[in-house]
Amino acid sequence: METVTLPLGLDLAAVAVGAIFGALVALRRDLDLTGTIGLAVCGGLGGGVVRDLLLNQMPVALTSGSYLPVALGTGVVMLVAHPQAQRLDDLLDVFDAVALGLFAIVGASKALDAGLGSVSAAAVGVVAATAGGVLCDLLSGQRPYIFGPGPIYGLAAAAGSAAYVVVERLGASIPIGIAVSLVVTVGLRLLAVHRGLSTPVA
Amino acid sequence: METVTLPLGLDLAAVAVGAIFGALVALRRDLDLTGTIGLAVCGGLGGGVVRDLLLNQMPVALTSGSYLPVALGTGVVMLVAHPQAQRLDDLLDVFDAVALGLFAIVGASKALDAGLGSVSAAAVGVVAATAGGVLCDLLSGQRPYIFGPGPIYGLAAAAGSAAYVVVERLGASIPIGIAVSLVVTVGLRLLAVHRGLSTPVA
Amino acid sequence: METVTLPLGLDLAAVAVGAIFGALVALRRDLDLTGTIGLAVCGGLGGGVVRDLLLNQMPVALTSGSYLPVALGTGVVMLVAHPQAQRLDDLLDVFDAVALGLFAIVGASKALDAGLGSVSAAAVGVVAATAGGVLCDLLSGQRPYIFGPGPIYGLAAAAGSAAYVVVERLGASIPIGIAVSLVVTVGLRLLAVHRGLSTPVA
Repeated sequence: METVTLPLGLDLAAVAVGAIFGALVALRRDLDLTGTIGLAVCGGLGGGVVRDLLLNQMPVALTSGSYLPVALGTGVVMLVAHPQAQRLDDLLDVFDAVALGLFAIVGASKALDAGLGSVSAAAVGVVAATAGGVLCDLLSGQRPYIFGPGPIYGLAAAAGSAAYVVVERLGASIPIGIAVSLVVTVGLRLLAVHRGLSTPVA
Repeated sequence: METVTLPLGLDLAAVAVGAIFGALVALRRDLDLTGTIGLAVCGGLGGGVVRDLLLNQMPVALTSGSYLPVALGTGVVMLVAHPQAQRLDDLLDVFDAVALGLFAIVGASKALDAGLGSVSAAAVGVVAATAGGVLCDLLSGQRPYIFGPGPIYGLAAAAGSAAYVVVERLGASIPIGIAVSLVVTVGLRLLAVHRGLSTPVA
Repeated sequence: METVTLPLGLDLAAVAVGAIFGALVALRRDLDLTGTIGLAVCGGLGGGVVRDLLLNQMPVALTSGSYLPVALGTGVVMLVAHPQAQRLDDLLDVFDAVALGLFAIVGASKALDAGLGSVSAAAVGVVAATAGGVLCDLLSGQRPYIFGPGPIYGLAAAAGSAAYVVVERLGASIPIGIAVSLVVTVGLRLLAVHRGLSTPVA
C-alpha cells in the first residue's frame, strides 16, 4: 500500500472545530477565562495527542508549530467575540459532530500509515474522535457524554472510522474516503440528535 | 537475567476477564449498547494500554490482531447472552479480582522484561492492574473505586505484583510466579470483600 | 543551544512537594491508608509521568531508582507523622504552589532539551505542573480544581512556564531561570489565594 498522508489542513481544521467545541462547552458551564482557553486547547488537541501517544509518536501538536497557536487562537477569538460566540451555542452539536468526523478520519488514516491492521486503525480513529470530548467533560467535572444514555455518539464515530478504513483498503482516493467517512459520522450523529435516535439500553 | 515472556494466553485471558468485568459494570449502571461494548473494551484493554504507554511501547492491543477482537467479542457475547450475563453479576467481584491479579502479573513481567528495577516493575504491575477499572469508573461517571474507603483493593494488586517480582528475582519458574502472585492478589481481595477487611482510614 | 540539564535535586524536590500535597489532599478527604500513599504517588509522580509520555520518553519515574522511593517514602512519613502532618494542612496551598512552580520549570526545561519550540515547551510545562493535581482530583472523585472558578491557578503555571522559556532563550544561567520562574508561579498563585484574585468568568 502506498502511504498517502492527509492534507495538513484537514488536521488543523479538526483542531479549530474541536477548539470551538471546547470553548462552547466552557462558556455553557460558566467556566472562567482560563477554563475557556483551557477547554479550547483540550477539545482541539486532546484527541490528536491521545492518538499520537497510542501510535508511540511524539504528539504532532507539540512538534509542529501550527497546532497550539490554532487551538489557543481559537480559544482567544471565542473569548473576545463573546456575544457572537454565544450565538454559536445552538450549533454546539454541529461543531461536535464535525470534530468527531474529522478526528475519526485523521486518526484512522494515521494509524493505517503507522502500519496497523484495519480493526486497530478503526479503533484508533474512534479514540481520536472521542478523547477530546471526554477530556473536556472530565476536566469540567461532568459525567462523560460518550457512553450515554443518549443519542448515538460513539457508534457514529465507529461507523465513520470503519468506513474510512474500508474505503482506503478498497483503494479509493483520499478525497473519496474523507467524503464518505464524514457523511457517515456527521450524518449519523446529527440524525441521532434531531430524531432522538439512541442505541437501546442493554 | 534471561528474558522469559509470559504465554500470550495469559494476557488474552486477562483481557477477556477484564472485558467481562467492564460489561458487567455497564449493565449494572444501565448504560446502553455502545456503553456496554465500550466498557468491555476499556476494562479489557485499558490496563494493558496504560502499561505499554508507560513502557514507551506501541500498545500490543493495537499491534496484535488478537486483543481487540477478544475484547469486542466478549462485549458482544455479554450483550447477546444478556439474561445469562446478568446472572454473572454476583460474580462481579470475582471477575474483578481475577482481572486485577492477571494484569498485575503481566504488567510486572513486561516491566521486568523492559529492564526496569524491582520497585518500578511492581509499580507498573499495580497501574496495569487498576487502570482498566479506573477508566471504567471515570467513563461511566463514578467516583473511582480504587482509593476507597472500602475493602482492600489497590493493596491486593500491590502485594501480588510485588510477590511476582520477588519470585521471579529468586529465579523460580514462570508458572510458580504466576501461581503465587495470583493466590496473593485474588485471595487477599476476595478475603477483603467477604470479611469486609478495609485498610484503616488514616 | 547548549543543553544544560537541571540538577536532579530540583526534580526530586518537586516530587517530594507534590507527594506532600497529594497526601494532604487524601487526609483532608478522609481517604484510607492506601489512598494516602496512592495520592502521594500520584501527586508526586503524575505530572512528570505525563510530561515524559508527551515527550515520548520512558518516564524517569520508572527508569531512575530515586523517584518512586521518594514519593512512597513521603507518603509513608505523612501517614506515620499523622498529627504533625495534619498541621501542615494550613500550608496545603503553599505546597501546591511550590509543586506547581517546580514542575513547570522541569517540564519546560525537559521540553526545550527535547528540541521543542518555545510555545510547545511552555505548554509542556503547564501540563507537567497541573497533571498531578488533576489526577489527584479525578482519582478522589472531585471536580478538577484547575479550570475554576476560583483563584488563579493554571494561569500562574502558564506565566511561570513561559517565564522560564523566555529567560532560557535569552541565554541566562539556569539558576536565574529557576528563580524568576518560581517567583512568578508561586508569587502569582499565593497572591491570588490570599487576595482572592480570580480570572473573570467569561
